[in-house]
Amino acid sequence: MKRTRISDIARILEVSPSTVSRAINYKEGISDELREKILNVAQEMNYSFIVKNNNKELYKRIGIIIPDISNQFFSKILYGVQSVLIKEDFSIFFANTDENNETEEKYLKNLMDMNVDGIISAPSAGVNKKVYYQVLERGIPVLFFDRKIEGLNVSSVTLNNYDAVFMAIRNLVENGHKRIACVSGIPEIYTGHQRLIAFKQIMKIFNLQSDMIITGNFNEYDTKNEVKKFLSENKPTAIFSSNNKSTLGLLETIKEMKLKIPDDLSIIGFDPEPWTELLDIATISQPRFSIGSLAAQMLLREIQKKNDVIQNIVLSPELRVNNSIKKIN
Amino acid sequence: MKRTRISDIARILEVSPSTVSRAINYKEGISDELREKILNVAQEMNYSFIVKNNNKELYKRIGIIIPDISNQFFSKILYGVQSVLIKEDFSIFFANTDENNETEEKYLKNLMDMNVDGIISAPSAGVNKKVYYQVLERGIPVLFFDRKIEGLNVSSVTLNNYDAVFMAIRNLVENGHKRIACVSGIPEIYTGHQRLIAFKQIMKIFNLQSDMIITGNFNEYDTKNEVKKFLSENKPTAIFSSNNKSTLGLLETIKEMKLKIPDDLSIIGFDPEPWTELLDIATISQPRFSIGSLAAQMLLREIQKKNDVIQNIVLSPELRVNNSIKKIN
Repeated sequence: MKRTRISDIARILEVSPSTVSRAINYKEGISDELREKILNVAQEMNYSFIVKNNNKELYKRIGIIIPDISNQFFSKILYGVQSVLIKEDFSIFFANTDENNETEEKYLKNLMDMNVDGIISAPSAGVNKKVYYQVLERGIPVLFFDRKIEGLNVSSVTLNNYDAVFMAIRNLVENGHKRIACVSGIPEIYTGHQRLIAFKQIMKIFNLQSDMIITGNFNEYDTKNEVKKFLSENKPTAIFSSNNKSTLGLLETIKEMKLKIPDDLSIIGFDPEPWTELLDIATISQPRFSIGSLAAQMLLREIQKKNDVIQNIVLSPELRVNNSIKKIN
Repeated sequence: MKRTRISDIARILEVSPSTVSRAINYKEGISDELREKILNVAQEMNYSFIVKNNNKELYKRIGIIIPDISNQFFSKILYGVQSVLIKEDFSIFFANTDENNETEEKYLKNLMDMNVDGIISAPSAGVNKKVYYQVLERGIPVLFFDRKIEGLNVSSVTLNNYDAVFMAIRNLVENGHKRIACVSGIPEIYTGHQRLIAFKQIMKIFNLQSDMIITGNFNEYDTKNEVKKFLSENKPTAIFSSNNKSTLGLLETIKEMKLKIPDDLSIIGFDPEPWTELLDIATISQPRFSIGSLAAQMLLREIQKKNDVIQNIVLSPELRVNNSIKKIN
């Protein structure tokens, strides 16, 4: 296959090669709209985006941007990252953004000053792409996990969220459930958005009511309060919860209302934890360790310049059956 | 009170002031034994150890050394740290050592190169003090939390572990328990050591058998296996577990053996988590947020040179009663 050049992209879009170069190298001086257009065409033509950083010396340290360090999901992923990078003598530093995009931008600037060789990030909603442009322009490879930002051509490792929700709902439907509610996440976040959209689509495929949505915002407290309100007015037979923290909030309300699982209410959660096993809660399981180890391997290859293809890897979830789903005849 | 000078310490120990200065400023060139002796006398005489860093410009970033990022205990402390430092526009970067002292030494060296203004650390067992000497010599203040290293005069925020174990055992004794076992932590770690020693002492005070020790090493898997072995040969009426991960392992074994809490076995854990509440497990609670916020406040005052006294703050635990302890007549 012939390698795509900047001039090929320029010809197709009828712009100058320097404009294309500016867009692709994440330099300032062109509109966001034009940059998006150029990046899209470049990606379609399999242009190699990988940053060339001129054989600079490695500092052997990488930064990880984590949106919520109190969520075990992210700490498990870290162990996957460590399994690859510690062997290569890299040091790993994280920053916790608490889903705040200004904090994320500040941390990214600090990581640049701290001479990291690469960054692995689960970006928060609404973060300014320009900071990521600056990182890439500096020759620091970036890899997204769990989430992606549209219009930034960097490699990523994410979950097939549609399949995940499908597995959960199909299992409930096969057990005879029809009135199924969904505890949704933060709608602005990639995973929150994907899982909510998937829930609505899949419920329609099964010809079931698709609007029983409880806004849990991926946290224990909102979920607890919203589930309580919801259950005082609605009578679902099953609830699907779209992350581990919302499962906690859901279980707390169920305990408070003295409902029995699965006799009074069936539950399926997202992300197994030791306590979901102790409490016999069915879950959708993501390959967390693999998300981390693949992300680290891909970043390492970019840092070592052994790779020059952008890869967007989408991993498959698994259903973990348990005793939280009642069979309805 | 007269301020202690280097010459005062030199006179008492009959060494030269430059030797005292070398010890106190963490410079090489004197034996570890002599350094220890000098530091002990200096501390007794209330010498001000605080690093003077000549009004250097602040980078507004601090590093945190965490031994086990998958333990929620540490993530809660982080929220305390953040509550103080984010307001002051500091960026916070952590490193996870997995209780490995070589990793810790590598991370400390990296943090120095990355120009952090201060370091908050829960040091792992057996870490080489000399790396901390280097950090202090560079004028970077260090603050220990959860754990301390003997012979390093830095401020710290820790728990009163003796009181914590006493609260747990007293509650069991008041409920009529006599055969009480302890799931111990990693004995080389400060908290593991303190809690094990406290358990043995307190059981003796109550005139009870003090050798029912199950080595849990602060992790789920060792605890699970060791508890299974222990319960096949011993019949305690109650088990005290000395951290949250060992409580998980303990509960997994109890579930597997189909024992009922508290009818067959009473349980008291360490560190409440959402799942200990869901499962009605009594716990000893540490003021995690305060540990973090106090550590950050104290470090900040050292960075800003508003403080020149070493403070070792010891916080009090609280008992969180629940339905996991049976009353025995």
